[in-house]
Amino acid sequence: MARMVATDKRVVIESVSPAVDGGRFPAKATVGDPVTVAASVFADGHDSVSSVLRYQRAGARSWAEVPMQFLGNDRWQAMFTPDELGMWQFEIVGWVDHFETWLIGTTKKFDAGLDIDVELLQGAELYAAAADRAGAKAARELASVAAEVGGPGRSQADRLAVATAPEAIALARKHPDRSRASKSDARWPLVVDREKAVFSTWYELFPRSWSKREGEHGTFADVEARLDYVAGMGFDVLYLPPIHPVGTTFRKGPDNTLSAGHDDPGVPWAIGSELGGHTAINPDLGTIEDFRSLRDAAGARGIELALDIAFQCSPDHPWVTEHPEWFRHRPDGTIQYAENPPKKYQDIYPLDFESEDREGLWTALKGVFDHWIGEGIRIFRVDNPHTKAFPFWDWVLEAIREEHPDVIMLAEAFTRPAVMNRLAKAGFNQSYTYFAWRTTKHDLIGYMADLARVSHFFRPTFWPNTPDILTEELQTGGRAAFISRYVLAATLSPACGIYGPAYELMEHVPLRPGSEEYLKSEKYQIRSWDLDRADSLAPVITRVNHARMTRPALHRMNGLTFHPTDNDALLAYSKGMPGEAVLVVVSLDPHHPQSGWVSLDLGAIGVEPESTFEVHDLLTERRYRWEGERNFIRLEPAGVPAHVFAVRAETRNEEGPDDSH
Amino acid sequence: MARMVATDKRVVIESVSPAVDGGRFPAKATVGDPVTVAASVFADGHDSVSSVLRYQRAGARSWAEVPMQFLGNDRWQAMFTPDELGMWQFEIVGWVDHFETWLIGTTKKFDAGLDIDVELLQGAELYAAAADRAGAKAARELASVAAEVGGPGRSQADRLAVATAPEAIALARKHPDRSRASKSDARWPLVVDREKAVFSTWYELFPRSWSKREGEHGTFADVEARLDYVAGMGFDVLYLPPIHPVGTTFRKGPDNTLSAGHDDPGVPWAIGSELGGHTAINPDLGTIEDFRSLRDAAGARGIELALDIAFQCSPDHPWVTEHPEWFRHRPDGTIQYAENPPKKYQDIYPLDFESEDREGLWTALKGVFDHWIGEGIRIFRVDNPHTKAFPFWDWVLEAIREEHPDVIMLAEAFTRPAVMNRLAKAGFNQSYTYFAWRTTKHDLIGYMADLARVSHFFRPTFWPNTPDILTEELQTGGRAAFISRYVLAATLSPACGIYGPAYELMEHVPLRPGSEEYLKSEKYQIRSWDLDRADSLAPVITRVNHARMTRPALHRMNGLTFHPTDNDALLAYSKGMPGEAVLVVVSLDPHHPQSGWVSLDLGAIGVEPESTFEVHDLLTERRYRWEGERNFIRLEPAGVPAHVFAVRAETRNEEGPDDSH
Repeated sequence: MARMVATDKRVVIESVSPAVDGGRFPAKATVGDPVTVAASVFADGHDSVSSVLRYQRAGARSWAEVPMQFLGNDRWQAMFTPDELGMWQFEIVGWVDHFETWLIGTTKKFDAGLDIDVELLQGAELYAAAADRAGAKAARELASVAAEVGGPGRSQADRLAVATAPEAIALARKHPDRSRASKSDARWPLVVDREKAVFSTWYELFPRSWSKREGEHGTFADVEARLDYVAGMGFDVLYLPPIHPVGTTFRKGPDNTLSAGHDDPGVPWAIGSELGGHTAINPDLGTIEDFRSLRDAAGARGIELALDIAFQCSPDHPWVTEHPEWFRHRPDGTIQYAENPPKKYQDIYPLDFESEDREGLWTALKGVFDHWIGEGIRIFRVDNPHTKAFPFWDWVLEAIREEHPDVIMLAEAFTRPAVMNRLAKAGFNQSYTYFAWRTTKHDLIGYMADLARVSHFFRPTFWPNTPDILTEELQTGGRAAFISRYVLAATLSPACGIYGPAYELMEHVPLRPGSEEYLKSEKYQIRSWDLDRADSLAPVITRVNHARMTRPALHRMNGLTFHPTDNDALLAYSKGMPGEAVLVVVSLDPHHPQSGWVSLDLGAIGVEPESTFEVHDLLTERRYRWEGERNFIRLEPAGVPAHVFAVRAETRNEEGPDDSH
Repeated sequence: MARMVATDKRVVIESVSPAVDGGRFPAKATVGDPVTVAASVFADGHDSVSSVLRYQRAGARSWAEVPMQFLGNDRWQAMFTPDELGMWQFEIVGWVDHFETWLIGTTKKFDAGLDIDVELLQGAELYAAAADRAGAKAARELASVAAEVGGPGRSQADRLAVATAPEAIALARKHPDRSRASKSDARWPLVVDREKAVFSTWYELFPRSWSKREGEHGTFADVEARLDYVAGMGFDVLYLPPIHPVGTTFRKGPDNTLSAGHDDPGVPWAIGSELGGHTAINPDLGTIEDFRSLRDAAGARGIELALDIAFQCSPDHPWVTEHPEWFRHRPDGTIQYAENPPKKYQDIYPLDFESEDREGLWTALKGVFDHWIGEGIRIFRVDNPHTKAFPFWDWVLEAIREEHPDVIMLAEAFTRPAVMNRLAKAGFNQSYTYFAWRTTKHDLIGYMADLARVSHFFRPTFWPNTPDILTEELQTGGRAAFISRYVLAATLSPACGIYGPAYELMEHVPLRPGSEEYLKSEKYQIRSWDLDRADSLAPVITRVNHARMTRPALHRMNGLTFHPTDNDALLAYSKGMPGEAVLVVVSLDPHHPQSGWVSLDLGAIGVEPESTFEVHDLLTERRYRWEGERNFIRLEPAGVPAHVFAVRAETRNEEGPDDSH
C-alpha cells in the first residue's frame, strides 16, 4: 500500500533550465554574465501561482531571491548575475498565491457589478494574515489596510480602492504566504568561470623551432624574444606542448620514424626521462627561471601561458621505476605500452586507472596540476582526456575548481559526441570540436545547431589546424582556405586557436597523400620558420583578431543567426544584439570566385525593413551602403574571401523628414 | 576539498530510455508488448564495453538479464516483454570487457603477422579467470582452454584457434568479469497496463435519455435493453456520466438556466443529495441490482462499464454536513462554491485539498474508487483531475495500482500541456487530448508529433465530440464532417470514443452561435433519440470500428507515417508493419469534393518500388490496383469522405517470370 503523503504542496516545479542530467552535473556560466533560469511552475485548478528564484554561492549561509516572471504556458523565468568564480547553486520556490487569486477575482466581480462584501472580508483576512508575517512597521501598515478593507461604514468601492492601492499590494506581496510552498527537486549547480573560459584566442607553438639560429633547439628565451609577434597578432593564450624531459627509449625520429638519431629531440608527449617527469622542465628549453620569465613577459603583454598536460609516460619516466603499480603489466613481466592493434606505440606507457593504488596515482596526477598552478599557470590543455577514466576527471576537476576556480581546462578529446559531452560535464571548461572537418554550408549550420543544444555545459573551441590535424582543405585550398577557415573559427566560436607559425605561413604538405599529419612535423623535429615572409597571413589574422576583440558580439556563443544565400559556397551569419551586430559572409570555395544574393534577416541585425544601412568590413576597412533584405556579395580567392561587417543601422531622422524620433 | 572517490568503475551509463523525468515517474508499457530499452554506455579509451539490461517485477527477489546490443555511436539496446500487470523496473549494467578487448586485439595482431606469444599468455590468464568465476563444469572446460592457450609446445596459430573457438568464446562470455561494473543511476520504473489502457473504443451515453417512452427518465434497464446497439457498432467501453443522486439546491434547468423546474433531472456532475453521495445510485436510474445487471450484460457482450468520478459535491451532498472541514469556508460562514470570476457555480462545492483533514478527505476519496472497484468496475473517467491537487493523484493512483493493477483511469483534463502531462506522470493511464480542435493538415501532423514526444508516458484518446464539446466543424460540416472526424479519431489514435447518440445522429446545433455547448444538452434535460433514423451514421461507425478491431496496426500509437499529398484538404497516413499496413486518406473539407495525388512512402507500407499492389477499402469493400509511388485520390462529401485501406503488396513471382523468390 502506497505511503500516505497528505501534503498540501500543490505547486509542481519541473523542466528547470539550465540543468545538466537533472542537476547531476553543473551547468556553466561566466562571471558577470546574467544567467537566465526558467522552469515550469504550476498548480492544479485556477488559483494564481507565484514563484521566486533563489541563488547563492555554494555553501553560503543565505540565499538571494528574485521573483520569477510568468512567460505564458506555465513557464517562468528569472535572471541573476554571479559575481564570483566557483560553484553556485539555485533553486526555485513556488506557491499557490491566495492573495493574487483574491485580487484578480474580486476586481473582476466588482467590475461585473456583483456584491463583494464577503470578498472584502476575505481581503481583510488576507491583509491581516500578511501583517502577521511582517515585521513591526509593515505589520502596522498591513493591519491598518486590513481594518479599512474589512471595516463597515464605507462603500464597497472605497474599501476595494484601499485593498487595491499599489502601495498596499506591494507591501502584501513582500509578505506572501509561503507556508505551503514547493521547492524544486534539486539545488541546481552552476559553475561560474572567468571570461577566458569562454572567450580566448589561442596560439600554439613548439618552442623547439623558435631559435634564431637554424637547426638549434629553441628555448623559452627564444619564445620570449618573439612574444611581441604573438601579442601583435592579438592572441591572448600562448599554448606550449609538453615542456618536460623527453624519453629516449623508443624515441621517434623525423616524420614518426621508429628510430631517432642522436640529435633528434623526440616527441614532447613522450614524457619523462632520468631528468624528471611531469613536473620537470626539458633542459633544452631552459630552466624554471627561464620558464617564469617567459610566463611573466607574456603576462605583461596580456597573454597567459597554457600548458599541455598529457598523463602518459615514456619508458624512462621516473614513475615507471618508482611506481610500477601505476602501470599495467604483461604476463612476461614487461609494462604494457600503448597500442591500437596491430599498431604499437612502444615509446608510451599508459597509466592504469584500474591500478590497485588508484588513490596514490590520482593524487600524484593532481599533484602535477598543483605543481604548475604553483608556478602561476591557470590554463591547461589536457591531452586525450578520453583515454583516462571519467571518475578521475570528476574528482580532480572538482578538487582543483574548489581550490582554484580561476583554472581553465581545455579537453583535447577528438572522439565520439557522448564522450566529449561527458568530459564537459565532468568539468572541462572548454572543449576541442569537430570544426576542422565541417567544411560545407550544410555541415557548418548543422554543427552549430548541435553545439547550441549542449551550450549550457559544453564550451567549444574552433581550431582550423593543430599539429595533428592538417585537413585536406588546408592541404589543397591555398591562401584562401587558410583565411576563410580562420575567419570561420574566429567568428563562429568565441574560443578559437591556431597552431602556428604553420598556420600563418600556410604550411600545407602532408606526410603522405590521405594523411592529416604534417610532413616534417615539429612533433618529431626542429623546424625553422621565417616569420617575416612576405606572404604571411599574420596581417589578416591580426585584423580578424582585432575584430574579435573589439566586437562583444563575437565574445559569446549565443545570438547566432544564419542568413540564407542563393549560393551554397557562400555562408552568411550574424551575431550580437541590434546596434552591435556583426555580419559575416565567407566563401567556402577557395578555388573560384563566388557571388550571390544574401537574404538578410534584418531584425537579427537591427535594421528596419526597407531602410538603408552601412556595413563596414572590419578586415578591409571598406564600407558599403546596403538597402533592404537582399544584397549582392562577390568574394574572390585571390583577395580576402570573407567579409566581417560591423552593421550600422541608420536612424530615420538622419535622412527622412520624420524628426519626431 | 572534493571527496576522494578512487572508483575503478570506468563505464558511464546515461541517456536511458524509456524514462520520465530521470526516473521519477514510471514510463508506461502494455502487458505482452516488448519494451525497448536504450542507453548510452561507454568507457574511456579504446577497451571493449559490454552491457546487460536487468529487469523485474518491482519487488521481486531476482532479476532477469538480457545482453544489450550495440547500435553504434555509444548507444545500446535490449528488449524484454513484461508478462504481468503492475510495476516493473529495469536497470543497466555495463563494464569494460578485457576479454573482448583481448579477443579483437589479438586476432588483429595475428592477422598482421605479429608475434602473439605474450598475448596468448594474457588469453590464458583471462580464460583461467573466467574459470574462477564459473561453476564446476564450466570451470573445468574454461581451465582446459586456458591450459591449451597458455601451454607451450604448440603453434601460436593452434593456440589462438583454441582461444577463439566459438564454444570457448561463448563459455567465457557467460562468465564475464563484472567486478568493476557500473550500474545506471536509477532503477527505472515502468507501469505495465492491460490492453484496454491503450486500445479501446468508447461510447458515452446519458442513460436518462434511453427510455423508450419519450420524456420519461431512462434507466439502467433501458440501457441494458439496447446494449446490442452499442455492441453492434463495435464499442468495447460504455462510459456513463455520474450515476449518483443529483443535488437540488441551485439545480440547473434546461440549457443551463439557473432555476430548474420540478421535473428537471439536474446535472449529473452536481453530485449528492439526501439520498447519498459518490457511492450511491440515483434512484431515477434504478437500483444497485439494476446497475450490476447492466454491468454483467455489458460484460457478456465484451463491453466494460466506465464510471465517471467527479470529486465535487452539490450543496446537498452528505459530506457537506458530515465533513464541513473538507470544504473551504467564506468569512460569512458559508461554504465556498465553485467560481470562475465573475461567474458563479453555486450548485457545486469544490473539495479543499488544503484542508486540515487532508488524510481524512483523501482516504474518503480513495474509498469512492474502492467502492466501485468492489462493484466490479475497472475503468474510471476522472472529471477535471487538473482541479484537484497533484500530490493527491500521485498518492491515490499509486495506491490503487498496487491493489488493482487492472484499473484504468482516463484523465479528463482539457487544459495546458504541462498540466496534462503531469497528470499522466502521476499515473493516469489514458488522457483526453486537443484532437477535437486539430482540424487542418498542418495542425494534425504537428499534434501527432507532439504526442509522439510524450508517448512513453502519455496515452492519448481522441474524441471528436463530448457532451461539453460540439466543435464548430461538427456544427457546420454536416455528415461528411462527422464521418471524417471519426475516421481520423479511430485511425490516428488507438483509443477513441464518441458521445452518442448525439454523434451518430449528427446532433449539431449549438446553444448559441460561437458556443461549443449543445442546444438542449442532455447534461440538463432528458432527450429522446431515434436510434433507427435512416441517416444514422451507425453503419459507417460500425465499419470503422470493425477495421480498428481487425487491424493490429490500429492498436498502437507507433509506426505512424504521413504521406505527402498535393492537396492540403487531403491527409494521408499509414500505420503498421509491412504486410499488415493500413493506409488512410481523409478529406478535411466537408463541403467540397477534393482530389489530388498521394506520394506514398512505399517502404512504410511494405511495397516494393515500381510494383503494383492492391488497396482494399475497409469502409466500402472496394478494391483498387495501384502502381508505384504516386496515386490519385478523389473524395466527395456526399459519399464516404475517407479511405481506410488495407494494403496488400503483391509478391513478384505472382506476376513476373522470376519464380526463384
